[in-house]
Amino acid sequence: MSLGLNLSFCVKRWVTPALWAPLVASLGVRRVQLTYDLVDPLWPDDLLDDLARAVRDEAGARGIEVHSAFIGLAHYTYNQLLHPEPRVRDAAERWMARAYRFAARAGIAGVGGPVGAMAAAPDGREPEAVGERDYADLVRRLRRLAEIASAEGLTELYAEPTPLRREWPFSIAQAERLSADLAGSAVPWRYCLDWGHATMAPAYGERDASLEPWLTRLKEHVGVIHLQQTDGILDRHWDFTEAGIVDPMEAARLHERAGLADVPVFLEVFYPFEMTDAEVLDRIRRTCAILEPAFPSAAPR
Amino acid sequence: MSLGLNLSFCVKRWVTPALWAPLVASLGVRRVQLTYDLVDPLWPDDLLDDLARAVRDEAGARGIEVHSAFIGLAHYTYNQLLHPEPRVRDAAERWMARAYRFAARAGIAGVGGPVGAMAAAPDGREPEAVGERDYADLVRRLRRLAEIASAEGLTELYAEPTPLRREWPFSIAQAERLSADLAGSAVPWRYCLDWGHATMAPAYGERDASLEPWLTRLKEHVGVIHLQQTDGILDRHWDFTEAGIVDPMEAARLHERAGLADVPVFLEVFYPFEMTDAEVLDRIRRTCAILEPAFPSAAPR
Repeated sequence: MSLGLNLSFCVKRWVTPALWAPLVASLGVRRVQLTYDLVDPLWPDDLLDDLARAVRDEAGARGIEVHSAFIGLAHYTYNQLLHPEPRVRDAAERWMARAYRFAARAGIAGVGGPVGAMAAAPDGREPEAVGERDYADLVRRLRRLAEIASAEGLTELYAEPTPLRREWPFSIAQAERLSADLAGSAVPWRYCLDWGHATMAPAYGERDASLEPWLTRLKEHVGVIHLQQTDGILDRHWDFTEAGIVDPMEAARLHERAGLADVPVFLEVFYPFEMTDAEVLDRIRRTCAILEPAFPSAAPR
Repeated sequence: MSLGLNLSFCVKRWVTPALWAPLVASLGVRRVQLTYDLVDPLWPDDLLDDLARAVRDEAGARGIEVHSAFIGLAHYTYNQLLHPEPRVRDAAERWMARAYRFAARAGIAGVGGPVGAMAAAPDGREPEAVGERDYADLVRRLRRLAEIASAEGLTELYAEPTPLRREWPFSIAQAERLSADLAGSAVPWRYCLDWGHATMAPAYGERDASLEPWLTRLKEHVGVIHLQQTDGILDRHWDFTEAGIVDPMEAARLHERAGLADVPVFLEVFYPFEMTDAEVLDRIRRTCAILEPAFPSAAPR
């Protein structure tokens, strides 16, 4: 149960493999999750192919495994596969297909992230859940994406539940239903659970805001876990120099109790663009040290 | 000096003109600034053309002026015209060209936003400023973009200074230099000043963190002003239901004293994706009411 880093902390700072790979190595970390906030899959093929090669080379040279590639905030902004306009959904599918192509060329076996968000109602009233027709369309698109991923040679896809009723899955029951509806897809769809999503009390209620039932009930479908510090009020994605409700040691024990000790864990933290690079470096170093006892790095630091 | 709204508060919620235009009208606001967080210029032409028509129709039907279109957080993520890889800069230029094309078809006369960010150094040490060679390249690209904008029929472009040394312009002196270097460009490059950028003390020092010298020294080059509430510590983009250092009445007086009473002002606030739609609606309504005495809406509410 060693710690991996989502490269979210490198966004707009250490933006090329030649910049982030040595930094990751200096942190003593051996496993990362690439974010598409560093690479836009809509860039031209020749550029993407060279970047994919650089990912392989720079990570490979330092013994860093690039486990997966995840949607970042840039693409999450656009409602993806549940935008009210079907042609935006189509565009999001093409974006994902190009994301898969890039990952395959970079030697990355899995791709994931949140899958889509409905628009808000004019009066701001939120429905209990995504409607049935839109859900059916989403399932069709996710099955199609699994075929594309399979053709590219990927071996796993990840859907990330979010604490928003306009997205799917919002709840454990919705995740169970989606898994049933995606059974037998060309590549398995698994879940990426996030410590700051399931624990958000305003979304799930004080009593139910906990990752534990997600881990136990979705166990066989959990592919990745995102770690962050949070206050349980919003989805903070703080690092562990901040005080919050997530105790790293308890988190590690909970993963183990759920039989998920082998599921890769990635720290996913976001910093304000205007924070200095020196402060980000200092915080990420201190966070790795804080997490070390609970999630030991694979290599000596 | 009436209030305009940057549509940042609609992102991932009221995402189509049919959704945001009635909402804006219900707030009694008559002028908006579109954000490219609602429309990705890389979407296919037929989709963009239909969305451009919808912007014209829905805004026009309600007497809403779409003054300009601005880069949002999605595109800002990618370092744009100062990315270390020249081909990413080229891709950002093509993105901007498509953004201009969309704006022209939507009947929007001006486009703007931050223009680019250098990568961070491996050790996190930040240089005093963007280097000379990269700055020269930036100027070349901005002049070329002005030609493209002119060919599309746009009449104004805006560069937005940010409180980051890796971007340009970071300082008033840099903005003065850039204006001189862009003199005579095919379409004028003006500045979008932001109440939360110039006032950020960790970036500019307690003594100099103020919008006033930006307004007076750059006066003839100021095209747009972004309004936000902030604490002067980070670039918060809070709404005015939050306590902070920006007093709306003083802000309006300062614009007037600087001779910039006619420069369009747009509130630019960002909410966490996971905040409920009802809360966002409530906050934006209260913010408009709080700002009304200082920045009266053009129409009765």
